[in-house]
Amino acid sequence: MNSIKVKSPATVANLVCGFDILGLCLDSPLDEFTLSITDTVGVTIENIDNYNLPTDASKNVSGAALLKMLENENDIKGFHLISNKIIKPGSGIGSSAASAAGVIVAANHLLGNKYSKLQLVDFAMYGEEVASGAKHADNIAPAIYGGITLIRSNSPLDIISIDHPELFVTILHPQIEVKTADARNILPKEIPLKNAVTQWANVAGLVTGFMQHDYNLISRSLEDVVVEPYRSRLIPHFYEVKNAGKNAGALGGGISGSGPSIFMLSSTAEIATSVELEMKDVYLRTGIEFHTHVSKINKEGVKLA
Amino acid sequence: MNSIKVKSPATVANLVCGFDILGLCLDSPLDEFTLSITDTVGVTIENIDNYNLPTDASKNVSGAALLKMLENENDIKGFHLISNKIIKPGSGIGSSAASAAGVIVAANHLLGNKYSKLQLVDFAMYGEEVASGAKHADNIAPAIYGGITLIRSNSPLDIISIDHPELFVTILHPQIEVKTADARNILPKEIPLKNAVTQWANVAGLVTGFMQHDYNLISRSLEDVVVEPYRSRLIPHFYEVKNAGKNAGALGGGISGSGPSIFMLSSTAEIATSVELEMKDVYLRTGIEFHTHVSKINKEGVKLA
Repeated sequence: MNSIKVKSPATVANLVCGFDILGLCLDSPLDEFTLSITDTVGVTIENIDNYNLPTDASKNVSGAALLKMLENENDIKGFHLISNKIIKPGSGIGSSAASAAGVIVAANHLLGNKYSKLQLVDFAMYGEEVASGAKHADNIAPAIYGGITLIRSNSPLDIISIDHPELFVTILHPQIEVKTADARNILPKEIPLKNAVTQWANVAGLVTGFMQHDYNLISRSLEDVVVEPYRSRLIPHFYEVKNAGKNAGALGGGISGSGPSIFMLSSTAEIATSVELEMKDVYLRTGIEFHTHVSKINKEGVKLA
Repeated sequence: MNSIKVKSPATVANLVCGFDILGLCLDSPLDEFTLSITDTVGVTIENIDNYNLPTDASKNVSGAALLKMLENENDIKGFHLISNKIIKPGSGIGSSAASAAGVIVAANHLLGNKYSKLQLVDFAMYGEEVASGAKHADNIAPAIYGGITLIRSNSPLDIISIDHPELFVTILHPQIEVKTADARNILPKEIPLKNAVTQWANVAGLVTGFMQHDYNLISRSLEDVVVEPYRSRLIPHFYEVKNAGKNAGALGGGISGSGPSIFMLSSTAEIATSVELEMKDVYLRTGIEFHTHVSKINKEGVKLA
């Protein structure tokens, strides 16, 4: 096999109380990547979307991840990538992770699936480094493992898949820019121990709710007393949107990644669609451009197209 | 039924990273309480141990909990309690919780099991208030529910039982006094966000490890970067004891409650016994009096004798 096509998913990181540790994989939107092994050294990139992403591999998220993998390979010289990005960069639903994870999983198929998922995450993180300056697995992990993932530790990397009931995700993406640096700098360096305890109680409740398939417990645990009070300031009408979603029957939700997207979890597709209508309704009155997605959780992660 | 005898268990609160939220129930040591309905108003107490605990019900942990329950009752006037405390007060393994939980579960039996476990916890917490000035459920919850419990929220009280594999607990109780006030005051009011994230990552890992019956994940998650670095200063030779336990094969461990007891978790009874020998060995060289316990986890909580 010399060529392969994959679809690579959007993801939600920083799952409410699970800041920096819990993420989930969406079934849509999906990027499309066609990857081929070449006889020329390095990575060549052909973009067939309208995002004007860099074609210099070392400056391209997909390219940087593939270059890292090539450093580890003796048998092949290079890759050619045809990249069709669907997930808008800067939306907060893991666009760069989809780029990095998608091509690395594709490359692994071409190489006879020689690497473990954990190793794939490690390669893909070099793509994230190009995107944000930080080698983090927050979106890469759910994109590669699928479902809901826990990153227990970054060093050494320790990723655990968390069982969960059927869940549907509604996302509202306001067309504004939240700079990752701003989202980081707005957070306090120290937090009250009392709030930290509240947060880890909810993290434990959320993980238990997922594994016990207990929607009520999931809903009770979807509270973030540490990060949301700060980062919500960067997202216009955040609490109106969130409350509208909850009033429409969502279990809860919060900021996707470092924003600006807002996501809500629901127990059925019907509720998730009602939630979408109510969230839209808030933003239609603001004059800010936006778009929305409704998706079930993708248990598979990056998949063959 | 006018009289009943129960055995009420010791418990471990503040389960390493699960400070203030996770606890477990031991199979030994056990207090013994015989409770009878009386025709006289109030609670009378007869101590048949050597601890000289108060017999004035309002100043006695068991008595205060029973008085609170009586406030809720129209059909009965009072209780007589014969109290045989086995669990040493001040040891950090929930002696006061055993007193409060034991008599409240006994009373519930005498009243035809009319109250839910959650209501029983609420009554028993009035006993804890007498003991420590704070109405907390850290030890009450595992004593009444058995097994491993999560307190997701104190107000409203939200307690969840966590499934787990077979676990054995080794406890070393140094015969020193750690004042609860000192254990509280030594903690910082604020902690670095970075440490808080590490802690809730481990909390999520620990809960997942319990529910997935994954001893290795449990072991990796048994780290406390927030509380132990402070409270361990109040317990002589804490790290030597802990390291000896880990070297003998324990999964991990830490401070039981607010100390001074040190506990270690193991996957088999044989390992828990080896762990006990190694922990003892450290303390035998210190000249400090101590005693040890090895127990499996008690899935039942307070039980009929």
